[in-house]
Amino acid sequence: MSQFEYVGKSVNRRDGVDKTTGRGLFTTDIFLPGMLFAKVLRSPHPHARIVSIDTSEAEKLPGVKAVMTHKNGPKNLFNAAVPMFLTIPQLERVLDQLLFDEVVRHVGDEVAAVAATSEAIAEKALTLIKVEYEILPAVFDPLEAMKPEAPELHPGKGCTPEGRNIPAEIVKIPYNDVEKGLAESDVIIEETFELPVVKQVQMETQAAVAQVDGDGNVTVWSTTQTPHPSRAILGKIFDIPAGKIRVLAPPYVGGGFGVRIGLSGKAEPIAMGLALLAKRPVKMIYTRKEDFIASDTRHSGYVTVKLGAKRDGTFQALDMKAVLNTGAFCTFGAELPGVCGAMTLAIYRIPHQRYFGHSVYTNCTSAGAMRGFGNPQGNLAMEQAVDMMAEKLGMDPMELRKKNIMRPGDPWCLPYPCGTSELPECIRQGAESIGWSRRGKLNEPDSVKLRGLGMAVGTHVSNAWPFCVDYDNAYVTIQSDGSAQVASGVPDIGTGTSTSLVQIAAETLGMNMDNIGLTYGDTLGTPFDIGSHASRTCYAAGTAIKAAAADARKQVLDYAAGYFNIPAERLEIRKGVIAPTAENLGECSGSGLCQLEEVKEGKGNSVTMEELAYHAHVRNKQFIGVGRIVPENAPPWHACFAEVEVDTRTGQVRVVKLAAAHDVGRAINPMIVEGQIEGGAVQGIGYALSEEITYNDKGQQQQYSMHNYMLPTAEDTPEIHSIIVEGNDPTGPFGAKGAGECSLVCPASAIANAVANATGYRFKKIPMTPERVFKALNS
Amino acid sequence: MSQFEYVGKSVNRRDGVDKTTGRGLFTTDIFLPGMLFAKVLRSPHPHARIVSIDTSEAEKLPGVKAVMTHKNGPKNLFNAAVPMFLTIPQLERVLDQLLFDEVVRHVGDEVAAVAATSEAIAEKALTLIKVEYEILPAVFDPLEAMKPEAPELHPGKGCTPEGRNIPAEIVKIPYNDVEKGLAESDVIIEETFELPVVKQVQMETQAAVAQVDGDGNVTVWSTTQTPHPSRAILGKIFDIPAGKIRVLAPPYVGGGFGVRIGLSGKAEPIAMGLALLAKRPVKMIYTRKEDFIASDTRHSGYVTVKLGAKRDGTFQALDMKAVLNTGAFCTFGAELPGVCGAMTLAIYRIPHQRYFGHSVYTNCTSAGAMRGFGNPQGNLAMEQAVDMMAEKLGMDPMELRKKNIMRPGDPWCLPYPCGTSELPECIRQGAESIGWSRRGKLNEPDSVKLRGLGMAVGTHVSNAWPFCVDYDNAYVTIQSDGSAQVASGVPDIGTGTSTSLVQIAAETLGMNMDNIGLTYGDTLGTPFDIGSHASRTCYAAGTAIKAAAADARKQVLDYAAGYFNIPAERLEIRKGVIAPTAENLGECSGSGLCQLEEVKEGKGNSVTMEELAYHAHVRNKQFIGVGRIVPENAPPWHACFAEVEVDTRTGQVRVVKLAAAHDVGRAINPMIVEGQIEGGAVQGIGYALSEEITYNDKGQQQQYSMHNYMLPTAEDTPEIHSIIVEGNDPTGPFGAKGAGECSLVCPASAIANAVANATGYRFKKIPMTPERVFKALNS
Repeated sequence: MSQFEYVGKSVNRRDGVDKTTGRGLFTTDIFLPGMLFAKVLRSPHPHARIVSIDTSEAEKLPGVKAVMTHKNGPKNLFNAAVPMFLTIPQLERVLDQLLFDEVVRHVGDEVAAVAATSEAIAEKALTLIKVEYEILPAVFDPLEAMKPEAPELHPGKGCTPEGRNIPAEIVKIPYNDVEKGLAESDVIIEETFELPVVKQVQMETQAAVAQVDGDGNVTVWSTTQTPHPSRAILGKIFDIPAGKIRVLAPPYVGGGFGVRIGLSGKAEPIAMGLALLAKRPVKMIYTRKEDFIASDTRHSGYVTVKLGAKRDGTFQALDMKAVLNTGAFCTFGAELPGVCGAMTLAIYRIPHQRYFGHSVYTNCTSAGAMRGFGNPQGNLAMEQAVDMMAEKLGMDPMELRKKNIMRPGDPWCLPYPCGTSELPECIRQGAESIGWSRRGKLNEPDSVKLRGLGMAVGTHVSNAWPFCVDYDNAYVTIQSDGSAQVASGVPDIGTGTSTSLVQIAAETLGMNMDNIGLTYGDTLGTPFDIGSHASRTCYAAGTAIKAAAADARKQVLDYAAGYFNIPAERLEIRKGVIAPTAENLGECSGSGLCQLEEVKEGKGNSVTMEELAYHAHVRNKQFIGVGRIVPENAPPWHACFAEVEVDTRTGQVRVVKLAAAHDVGRAINPMIVEGQIEGGAVQGIGYALSEEITYNDKGQQQQYSMHNYMLPTAEDTPEIHSIIVEGNDPTGPFGAKGAGECSLVCPASAIANAVANATGYRFKKIPMTPERVFKALNS
Repeated sequence: MSQFEYVGKSVNRRDGVDKTTGRGLFTTDIFLPGMLFAKVLRSPHPHARIVSIDTSEAEKLPGVKAVMTHKNGPKNLFNAAVPMFLTIPQLERVLDQLLFDEVVRHVGDEVAAVAATSEAIAEKALTLIKVEYEILPAVFDPLEAMKPEAPELHPGKGCTPEGRNIPAEIVKIPYNDVEKGLAESDVIIEETFELPVVKQVQMETQAAVAQVDGDGNVTVWSTTQTPHPSRAILGKIFDIPAGKIRVLAPPYVGGGFGVRIGLSGKAEPIAMGLALLAKRPVKMIYTRKEDFIASDTRHSGYVTVKLGAKRDGTFQALDMKAVLNTGAFCTFGAELPGVCGAMTLAIYRIPHQRYFGHSVYTNCTSAGAMRGFGNPQGNLAMEQAVDMMAEKLGMDPMELRKKNIMRPGDPWCLPYPCGTSELPECIRQGAESIGWSRRGKLNEPDSVKLRGLGMAVGTHVSNAWPFCVDYDNAYVTIQSDGSAQVASGVPDIGTGTSTSLVQIAAETLGMNMDNIGLTYGDTLGTPFDIGSHASRTCYAAGTAIKAAAADARKQVLDYAAGYFNIPAERLEIRKGVIAPTAENLGECSGSGLCQLEEVKEGKGNSVTMEELAYHAHVRNKQFIGVGRIVPENAPPWHACFAEVEVDTRTGQVRVVKLAAAHDVGRAINPMIVEGQIEGGAVQGIGYALSEEITYNDKGQQQQYSMHNYMLPTAEDTPEIHSIIVEGNDPTGPFGAKGAGECSLVCPASAIANAVANATGYRFKKIPMTPERVFKALNS
């Protein structure tokens, strides 16, 4: 990494001081003159029709300034997911949501919203709203919901030959002839795995403040991952041109993990709708319970894997099916099954593959994006099937994987090439770290605590294409003091964007990071960007910034060429100083402002950015770089190794160590990448062992707070060895690939395999809670 | 004007509803979590050295979080004027200010600032600061200040052969041989006029809120006319890269009139300095008195005109001198004398001219920019001299002017051509409106109320060049719903910028105004712009927006060319619809997305911006237009006619009517231009008749509030006939020239000439207060 000045360095995060001292501004910190507070009345029923709603008493309560229901709310159908109108050309966007609808489809669905001069008055007003419901039959399991007798959640939508309540086109990936492949296989593993509903549980709940000016311009402070797409959706909901809406993060956002893509929560449109009615600013902050029951979860469902191999372990065929529970609304229900299938199919060279996957409406809270976006579900099924195959073949599961993993240049089902992979090296380093050779030799015959080792491998994306339109733009302007301002529409949701993107700009410009300011997370004055998700921020927004910075740099050097009177290509910028490259130092001469004599005397053979920018400025010129890019895509790779200890007396599974080796192409900021790997590992532990939202027979979520939703705590967190393996992908900025999600794709799979290794029992359903493990071991 | 859809229409102002309903957000409305309130201790002496200052008691007061004095304030010298580092290459910027200095130079100069949790605590803390002053000799008149025995305000600065306390280079405009011209003249008028200190008295006082984040990024909400230059000055004062500073208007600003250019008031750096110390946001709001005594005034001083003419009235020579009182600091003291001279010399074709002008330091409040920027001072002298010449020649002053006024193509002293002038038409319409033919026939022999008619003509600039660097940039981005977002660094200080600039964008794009949002007055995400002053906003920022919109439009049409499969030049955009031009309608055919059959059937021969933008969007493309322009300059022209009535018993002068005819090139929004003309007229009445700040022998300002500073009220406002004469200048957007200042250049001159016409007495000193008039008429 020594060829770089700023890239590859673990420089301190720019948001560090603000966040650790409590001074950072979040959406909840926004207070505006005359601001009102919003509260939402939510459905107690999982499925019902609002027969009548009477808000007159609420409206009379002093301090209440606006009440919104399905009667006076906007009438435009929308889809809360980013892609609303960013569809893959082949997929039609499913528009199935109204901000307030006459029918409620899950417990927590919005019935009415009130804006009042205080939160207490708003809450009091909610109790004064009289609602009469006609209870409708409800369904919570996707397989049940597909049956002919199931209630239709969106009448007229989703009735397909394959079943009811299938909102979007079924994703079908044919790849050669899977039947032939299976017929040619010596061994076949077929298993169905059941995945739970889990939640992102980001630190900050959904929140927004909306302000509407007299000319109809709207500003929305938001906890968003996607300022530009969110403003587009808001524009569609309210019939307001996007050019007159500003969406911004203020700038801090307390985590995302996918739950802030588009309008997963409805804080933004509720605040905006009430602000339009009340003609005053409105703040809407979700309680933690609201966040749990009324913003998107991860898709639960069923994934079936049928894997065929030759006797020597060569994979021959993979037939995969996914039935994913999208809950009450489709949101990402069209794209997510595609990612689930494609990412699972992309791990191994398998000549014959087939995938069939889709979403299903149920009366659960809507499912949407969560870190990994369908991939952890597929990975958990596939990587357990691989271990089962290894067992059946009598092979070491690591050797079986090494034999079959995708290599650069291999054909696969994706429309971009598998350009780079350091997965073999990831496996090597991960295995070494965990001590893979100890596998099978960990337990004494009579141990009550059984140890096991497991592994899993996986891949993910570096941006959203081909599952969603993906392009990016950026500006880099040089100020008259030689400092630079970078503008990118992407927010920093806690992932260090505001630091790593500046590293990319500094490296490209040849300028000190301290001289670079970043405008981000704000549609005001930034060009279009699809947001911080799909592991794309560094890869795609970084590429746009690199392009804009290169454009600005070229303008600077072209100007400097006139200044020095030598060709631009013989000049360079290093640490904010423009000078001829070493081999051209003698060439700087002639009639430019830099006089020959000065150069010869060693004076005037360089100029600082400040001097040059000022020189240009007083001659009426600013250097304005524009970057417009359509990113390619590139696979990051992850090999995760887990050691677990299962207490057979209690069923408690403890993760002893995780070794997570990650091919991220290039770590722009290794400290930040390590943070990503650790965070993914901990979320993976929760997915494997403790996190789950279940519904009772009244459709009520049984877990809705930090107290009853079992996130891993510091106590549950093992030693995590984050291993960065650099693959230097040619398509990414300075070789970087996506690093945000892949780290959560494999840990649960590795832990499940480790539990099977420890206990000999394979869990088809996660999380592997003490209760389930105890029951299984004692059955 | 029928060739335009949006230009030339008096569309309602976008800020109208917000301002009339009180909902608009101004700097004073900004409240941030943990925000502190700043108060400033100001010097009671006009000139003194701070021998000691003890802030310890103030610091101990509970609630006080930071105290700043010359001891701990920033040590970088600066110039509060915009051009700080935007100098004309020939002029060296005078750096003579410290935020807090050891020497105070006028009553009201900053001694210390306190930030506390409430305004009351901050005020209490000021009383606890102990300051020991060594009183220094003071001087208030610029002629006195030039004498060898005068105290030096900035020791080592300004000692010139011409006198003391001359901070900047003397502006000398030689134009042929003035001595020869005077020798060839038959009649010579020579007179010196004395001009008062007057104040902008904008509605909102100076105000700022500053916030510093943990990484050192700074946001300053400000009542600024110049966001980008102000951030550059703040960066220099505090050694922070401009790229890390954001300056914005929030967005509303309560008037400017020049007092918000650069750091005329110190609200911004005081708030920022205290925020850096306290690590909390700080709000600084000037009281009206602080605004009067501690933010820039108009330059007072002396202007001498020596005008020579042939017997037939042909002007032969003009020799002009100006000694202008810049007060305690130079600020615009280098440029303003240049504008005073050049604009006065530019009115008439005079073969031999000379100008000699400069500023002088005194212990008055610093003088800076005020609407007209030195031009009203010169005009008042010149236009009275012209009337005196007419009287001496026995000619009608209108005829004398018509004979001598500059015509397009005439050579003049300015480096850009006199390209257009509708001044003759302005004179014709103004004369007709006022009833000029009545002149000399208005009074009965024994009238106690004497009526008089007077006129004056003048010109001004359409941007700041050549008195200051002037260039502009803008972005126009097309959103995926076909709406547009325009980004310009210029603020709207109440002049309708946010409406008229959108008219320009709409006209250029061929889009409905309702589909265009404007980002303005904010350095975040806008490219460099020098701000709203020099009558340049519409002319220069408008030209940049027009260029950016044309760039975006070209991209749209190029894309549409592929869509329609016909060349882009055969397409047009009208009212948001892209279609072949009428003569090319039959040509749209071929293999584009728009099929031949569809065109022939009358379907598909057009596409809306929304359809096309979406089409591009899902194909990974946003249309991003960038405008980078260096504006030329163009002279607006003004002919002002006044009818006055002088009550000889009281000395009271009443303006009966003003007819103000203005060549503005093109009125982008005539209603807004009329507002500019009316506003200038009323300020001109104040300048002529009532406004004045005087100093007592202790250097104290005797007028510092709405009660003792005599602004014209509604009662003093006569019938004003605003006459727009369109000259269609080829250099401006759609023919527009500057319209912001010229309207204030001539009214006082016209009124003075009318008073002379009424009374036979010529006042060499304004304002012509009842007291002065009474005394003169009775002397």
